Amino acid sequence: MTSNLTVDAARIAADITALSEITEPDRPWTRRAFSPLFLQGRAYVERRMKDAGLETHIDHAGNLIGRRAGKKGGGTLMIGSHSDTVPEGGRFDGIAGLIAALEVARSLADKGIELDHDLEIVDFLAEEVSPFGVSCIGSRGMTGQRPDTWLHRMADGRSLATGIAEMGGDVNAATARGDIRGFLELHIEQGTVLEREGINIGVVTAISGITRIEIVVEGRADHAGTTTMPDRKDALVAASDIVLAIRGAGLELSKTPGHFTATVGEFAIEPNAANVVPSRVRMLIDARAEFPADMELFGAQVERIASQAAQRWGVTIATPERISHVVATPCDPDILDILERAADGAGITHRRMASGAGHDTGWMAKAAPAAMIFVPCKDGRSHAADEWAETDDIALGTAVLFQAVQDMDRRLSEER
Amino acid sequence: MTSNLTVDAARIAADITALSEITEPDRPWTRRAFSPLFLQGRAYVERRMKDAGLETHIDHAGNLIGRRAGKKGGGTLMIGSHSDTVPEGGRFDGIAGLIAALEVARSLADKGIELDHDLEIVDFLAEEVSPFGVSCIGSRGMTGQRPDTWLHRMADGRSLATGIAEMGGDVNAATARGDIRGFLELHIEQGTVLEREGINIGVVTAISGITRIEIVVEGRADHAGTTTMPDRKDALVAASDIVLAIRGAGLELSKTPGHFTATVGEFAIEPNAANVVPSRVRMLIDARAEFPADMELFGAQVERIASQAAQRWGVTIATPERISHVVATPCDPDILDILERAADGAGITHRRMASGAGHDTGWMAKAAPAAMIFVPCKDGRSHAADEWAETDDIALGTAVLFQAVQDMDRRLSEER
Repeated sequence: MTSNLTVDAARIAADITALSEITEPDRPWTRRAFSPLFLQGRAYVERRMKDAGLETHIDHAGNLIGRRAGKKGGGTLMIGSHSDTVPEGGRFDGIAGLIAALEVARSLADKGIELDHDLEIVDFLAEEVSPFGVSCIGSRGMTGQRPDTWLHRMADGRSLATGIAEMGGDVNAATARGDIRGFLELHIEQGTVLEREGINIGVVTAISGITRIEIVVEGRADHAGTTTMPDRKDALVAASDIVLAIRGAGLELSKTPGHFTATVGEFAIEPNAANVVPSRVRMLIDARAEFPADMELFGAQVERIASQAAQRWGVTIATPERISHVVATPCDPDILDILERAADGAGITHRRMASGAGHDTGWMAKAAPAAMIFVPCKDGRSHAADEWAETDDIALGTAVLFQAVQDMDRRLSEER
Repeated sequence: MTSNLTVDAARIAADITALSEITEPDRPWTRRAFSPLFLQGRAYVERRMKDAGLETHIDHAGNLIGRRAGKKGGGTLMIGSHSDTVPEGGRFDGIAGLIAALEVARSLADKGIELDHDLEIVDFLAEEVSPFGVSCIGSRGMTGQRPDTWLHRMADGRSLATGIAEMGGDVNAATARGDIRGFLELHIEQGTVLEREGINIGVVTAISGITRIEIVVEGRADHAGTTTMPDRKDALVAASDIVLAIRGAGLELSKTPGHFTATVGEFAIEPNAANVVPSRVRMLIDARAEFPADMELFGAQVERIASQAAQRWGVTIATPERISHVVATPCDPDILDILERAADGAGITHRRMASGAGHDTGWMAKAAPAAMIFVPCKDGRSHAADEWAETDDIALGTAVLFQAVQDMDRRLSEER
């Protein structure tokens, strides 16, 4: 299948392998942002960018950029992803999209194709949650969406401002870019939809919003042996009731149109002693919604669930607190059309879908027309050593990316 | 009410206050076994024992004993409790029973009453879970029930054997006592039954058995944003279902005759990250049963609950493991009769009840006829700074103890 492709699958596979093998040896596949190993990975990427004829630099926000000047200028098309990983992560999350973007530049050069607009291949700094406790540092910095307070965050004895400087950036030179006319990112799906349906690529309609809601259940610590069962205010029993109700509400919302998930991922009890009735549970709900209305509905349901549990189990529960809230970001409808036509033209099957995970695209889409291409990954596994995507699948996605960049370039020129 | 009593309520209250105030100043009321503060507390108790005319010594197991020789000998009657506390514990757990026992000796002396048998007032070493991770060290040591392996347990850089030596004991001199003809302990109820029913004392029929059962739920760590709700193997959701089922099973068993409680007191999830579906939960169930048959029934129910949850939620749960199992210990029926008659004779209301908590009596009862007297405590609060028992209530219990010791002494002499 890949023999007729406009991109070189073997070259993609070789680069993904070479970059992913720059890993902490004891816990593959780990290449944390801000680490010496991360800089080693970047040196590899920069060398390959130069091999492809790109001019490289690190921008003020710490992003590595490889630039290919256009014939006419008038703005920039940007494609890319990230080279950092979570601890004990995989070989494809971020890396596949970065190498796919590099391959697009190489294929353009191989075929002698010159675009009207400048093309930039980007390796965003620290898309994953970094040691500084925050994520998407590079894409937020590039687009003027990085809170100034973040710069004082500390990790390993230095501030984020210093960390960015160590990566080659300069936060004092920060200016939000206004020249980006379009952005595209290829990424593994990190879910099972494409694999299950046997579809080549996903055309991503939106980056789901992420809301985190904290619930604290206050019961009463009592002696586990002497306090009769009806007399208890057991915070764990009440919290367990809440977990099941949250799961039920999430399941129902997931059955309606639009991506929705709800997860209790953090959960801790006090005093956590064998012979004491639990007095306190703190849990954190992670909810993802393609449609903001679903998130509002869910938020109201969580309040009702908490209130009912408090009444039922005799515990005290303060109003659930939204401790963070990022609204869903729709992708650009014109680019979605371009992606679908590019896929159709190459006989590549596709379906529209929302991303449940956050991505740099979510921040880029607030500053420029943007969209994403998903490629299948095995069993939906990600952020794990067994994360896997077939080279042929990545190559098909890259071929769509290659075509879409040219189509976006042409459409932008026509609009002028 | 206390003016007609055979014991001195004011003297009891003064000693309880004085002993409890020997506390870590920053976290009242704390006097941990094996600490210098514990030895300060013991010095106070020993001085008061001597004031009461008792001969004091530390036995091989580290227990402080104050002895009053009988007229005829032929064995020992022992009464007492413990002076150590949990961290941030209360002023009455153990202390009330120790001072009550001391008051019995004083009242006998005041009234010129000599018993036939020797009387010993005991302050057991480390009834509470000590820094060595085990409890009832003194009562188990005295009766030959302390596992030899315990002696190698380490805390604060020394072995338990050394710790006992620091308390004045000598594990090399260990011999199980065979001379104890009867044992009685007064203790606060640590529950709400007596308070709620307005009854003066509890006559304790048994020390409940304690079984600890570990359940480990193995699910699958998945991305919280991208893994669709039906696709998950969420260990926390399955574990929550189990917690509610355990609580339900415990409630039903508590409604049948005989004390029963079931508590999930330890509960921890992995990886405990906001954006990851929980992959693993480990929980520890604490079950207390007056009747062994209830515990067997509960154990079978736990296995069924775990098996059903595994099937329902697609997770893996190994057979629940009993990691510890102490069978219930019945108190001596003859002593129960003596206690009831002593209370009736003084117009003190009483009811039979089991102890849900473990006590030194549980170990003494395996080596000698033994029983306990419970006195009410406010709101059932214990192992907490607000633990409280009224002086009048303790004095009534002490009066029963005072009478019962004389009745036991007489009955034993009659039996000879």
